[in-house]
This record gives sequence, structure tokens and C-alpha cells, in this order.
Amino acid sequence: MELWFSEYQSKNIKMSYKIKEVLHTEKTKYQNLAVLESEECGRMLILDDVVQLTMKDEFIYHEMIAHVPLVTHGSPERVLVIGGGDGGTLREILKHPVKEAHLVEIDEKVIEASKKFLPDLSVAFSDPRAKIFCEDGIAYIKRFKNYYDVIIVDSTDPVGPAVGLFRKEFYNDIFEALTEKGIFVAQTESPFYYADLLKEVYSSIADIFPYAAVYTAVVPTYPGALWTFTMGSKQIDPHNVEVPNICNFEAKYYTPSIHKSCFSIPAFVKDIISK
Amino acid sequence: MELWFSEYQSKNIKMSYKIKEVLHTEKTKYQNLAVLESEECGRMLILDDVVQLTMKDEFIYHEMIAHVPLVTHGSPERVLVIGGGDGGTLREILKHPVKEAHLVEIDEKVIEASKKFLPDLSVAFSDPRAKIFCEDGIAYIKRFKNYYDVIIVDSTDPVGPAVGLFRKEFYNDIFEALTEKGIFVAQTESPFYYADLLKEVYSSIADIFPYAAVYTAVVPTYPGALWTFTMGSKQIDPHNVEVPNICNFEAKYYTPSIHKSCFSIPAFVKDIISK
Repeated sequence: MELWFSEYQSKNIKMSYKIKEVLHTEKTKYQNLAVLESEECGRMLILDDVVQLTMKDEFIYHEMIAHVPLVTHGSPERVLVIGGGDGGTLREILKHPVKEAHLVEIDEKVIEASKKFLPDLSVAFSDPRAKIFCEDGIAYIKRFKNYYDVIIVDSTDPVGPAVGLFRKEFYNDIFEALTEKGIFVAQTESPFYYADLLKEVYSSIADIFPYAAVYTAVVPTYPGALWTFTMGSKQIDPHNVEVPNICNFEAKYYTPSIHKSCFSIPAFVKDIISK
Repeated sequence: MELWFSEYQSKNIKMSYKIKEVLHTEKTKYQNLAVLESEECGRMLILDDVVQLTMKDEFIYHEMIAHVPLVTHGSPERVLVIGGGDGGTLREILKHPVKEAHLVEIDEKVIEASKKFLPDLSVAFSDPRAKIFCEDGIAYIKRFKNYYDVIIVDSTDPVGPAVGLFRKEFYNDIFEALTEKGIFVAQTESPFYYADLLKEVYSSIADIFPYAAVYTAVVPTYPGALWTFTMGSKQIDPHNVEVPNICNFEAKYYTPSIHKSCFSIPAFVKDIISK
């Protein structure tokens, strides 16, 4: 039997993966969850038919959403991930000498699936510095003031359970929850498919934070491949930060030079956020 | 009727485009040629079932293969493109004050199809500074010594007619055909699919030229999306060049800041070329 999984990147374009085995499917309280074993990209986590990660290129997204804000901050002690139930972002955070790394995931079934099927990602959950909370990040963050040094929003696409994670009210609460040197980053999709979202999020962040910046990375299995991350910073200018020349953690995509250059964005992306 | 074109990026992964209309198909002396009108990406040029360009993102590849070497050189007067029969690279070159831009394309049918179906690209052919030669670039280049300031190899994948464009003997001939400050660039595929090729080409270029460098751009419709270009330079160090802060030509991807940062390559790509 020849089995293929297809992701509709839009209604007129799709990416298909030859599948060895369907390891798990489940309807959780929030979404449809599947773990597939693909020929080309290894294991894949799928939520509501959208590829969340593949073992072939997950390192790119997870390294870039974690190391850029942490190195920009310089000495983060307490870090929060909102979303990111697969554990990949947490794993990268824990490569730094942080004291505590908290993760708030609304859907505990994502964490369970990762523990069972994605050991390279869920390895992070057993670190003594990690604390996991299964609840809505929007409610969670309201309880904190001046508490986290870095907050990372590692969400699904802005549909379904993640919609509130792209709203200005939420970013206001994040601002309050950050310490005085605090840094915030959110994944903000591809400019090829979500230009309006990027524009709106950037504008909200620039309204709330003294510094706002967009950086990019290339994630081949995400629609549009050119992926954006939007950063808000209370005190440190992300465009003018001293990045140490030596990288004292293991990384396959991130380098100090990539850190400095990832804030150089293509002309058409600059146009999107400047309009 | 629902019509889809699928490109096998490997035997286990494919990208599919919903098609409005098949505008043209033809078996040329060298390859199968098709021009499709897609819903998502506009017109597409397909050679031997491989996407050569889509109107949605062709600007990225063409700007980056042209402006990076031309700006690195600083004052190129005579520029050669080997391949590139669609005209996109030539169009970008002609945004610079060059005196002559030559193009050698083995398959005249590609040029004809572009003239008929891709007016935004073939516009370049009518520039008085452009000269078009329909012959094999490998034979063509042997006739020149100390002649071109910049040579760009804008080839198809390293199968079929393009195989010889990735051989060291050809790069030796290019070295001879370049003037003393001469710069050479070739498209060298994605490190996700052609790591061995990139390693081999880089090693050949580094053997022949005093300076060798790899830079990247993101082309969403190319397999792997993270695209590499390998540069050889006779006198100018591409990593330490003064890039003017103002861009005096129109570009949608290229900026002076992108120019400087595109030479920062991900750790795993650095590993490929350093081994």
C-alpha cells in the first residue's frame, strides 16, 4: 500500500509526504492530533492536519525561537514557553544556564504524544529545571507581574485554540509579566501566507514595547519556508546587541553570525511591517 | 475539472500546484518543457518535470544570483550568464550600469517560451546591452581569456544537460575567462537534498579561486527552500566587501543588509563545506 499524507498549504497548493506508518491518531479536547512516520522527514507531529514539526528540520525552528531571545537577553534566569507542548523549544532553552523553564500548554495530549513518540523533543520534560502547566496560557500569564526574563509564544497557526495568542491584549499581559530587561518572542508565520497577521502583530508589539524587531529562519516543511519571529524588548535593542562570538551550546542551525544576520529581513518583508 | 501538477522533490515528498491552464508543452532537443498557469503562484516554467520558476517567487532567486556578485565586484562592465534562458537573471543584471550582458543558453526553446509566456522575465532580451547566444556554455567559455568581469551559472539541477556545469574543468575555464578582479557565482542547490554536490562544488571553487564563499536565499518553491549559491573570486574577499548602504536599483528581496547577512550560513551548512 502506498500511503501519502498531504498538507494543504493553501487551497491551491499542497505538500505530500510518503508515510511508512500512522503511529497515532486522536481527537483531543482541542484538536485532531496525529503522529506519522514519514520516509523523508522521519516522525511528524500533525495538529488539525497542519504539520507542526518533522524530525528532519524541527531543529531550525526550535533553535531559532529559543536561542535568539535568550542570547539577546544575556542572562535569563526564568523563562516561559506558552504552547510548545512537543518540548522542542524547552529542550533548546535548557541548553542555557537558566534557573527555571516553565511551559504552559493548553492541550496535555500534545505533551503525552511527545513523551510517547518524540523522545528527542520530550527529553526536556525530565530536566529538574522544567515545570509543566496544562492550562490556557492567556489566563496563566495574567497572574504574573515582573516575573519572567524571557517569554516565548510557540503557538500553532492563528486558527482554533491559538487565535487569542495573536491579540494585543495578550501581548499587554506578557509585557507586564516580564522583568525590566524582559524579552518576548512569538512565531509569526510566513510572509507569503500571513502578511496581514505579521503586520498586525508587529504593529501591536511596537506599540507596547520600546523595541520591536522581526527576524527570520528557513523551515522547509512550513508553508512558505521563510519563517518570521517577532520580538518585543523592554530595554535591550535587539538590533544592537553584543552577541558573544563563541556559541557555548550545541546547535545545528544557530551560530553567533546567524544571530546577527537573522534580523536582516528581505525588502518585501520590511515593506509589510513598515506600511 | 480539477487539475494538479506535482513535482517530486524526492521520491518520498512532493509539492502540488492547482493548475488553471496548461499554456504550453513541448519536447525540445534537450528536455521536456512546459508552461503552466497556476492558481497560487501564477505562471510556472517546468523543465523535465522540475519547477524552474514561478511568478510568485522568481524575484528571490534572480535578484540574489545577480545582485550579490555584481555589487561585490563594484564596477562590472561585461557580465555573462550561462543558462538562465528564461531571462530573469539577465533582467536583474541589466538594472546595473553594465556595458554588456551576454547570455549563453543551450536550449533556444527555453528563450522562445519565455518570450511568448513570461514577459516579465523576457523583457531583458530587448535591452540593447544584451546579447544572446544559443550554444553549449561549456564550449563557449573555452574561447575567452580575461574577458568577463562577472560570470553567473544559472543552471538547472545537476542531471541531464546541466551535469557538465558542475565539473571542476568547467570552473577552471571560467577562472581563465574572468578579468583580474573577476567574480563567479553558481546556483548550488539546497543542502537538504544536494549536500554532496555543494561540498564538491565548494571544494573545487576553493581549489581554483583565491576566495570561495557560500551564500543563501530562501526560495519557497524550490525543494528544501534554503538555496545555496557558491562564489569564487579572484581578488575581492566576498566576506569583507564594502556594500553601499543605499541600493540604487529596484529590488523586492535584496537589500544591502541582506547582502551582508546572506554569507552567514547555518551551522549544518558550514559543516557540509568544511568537512
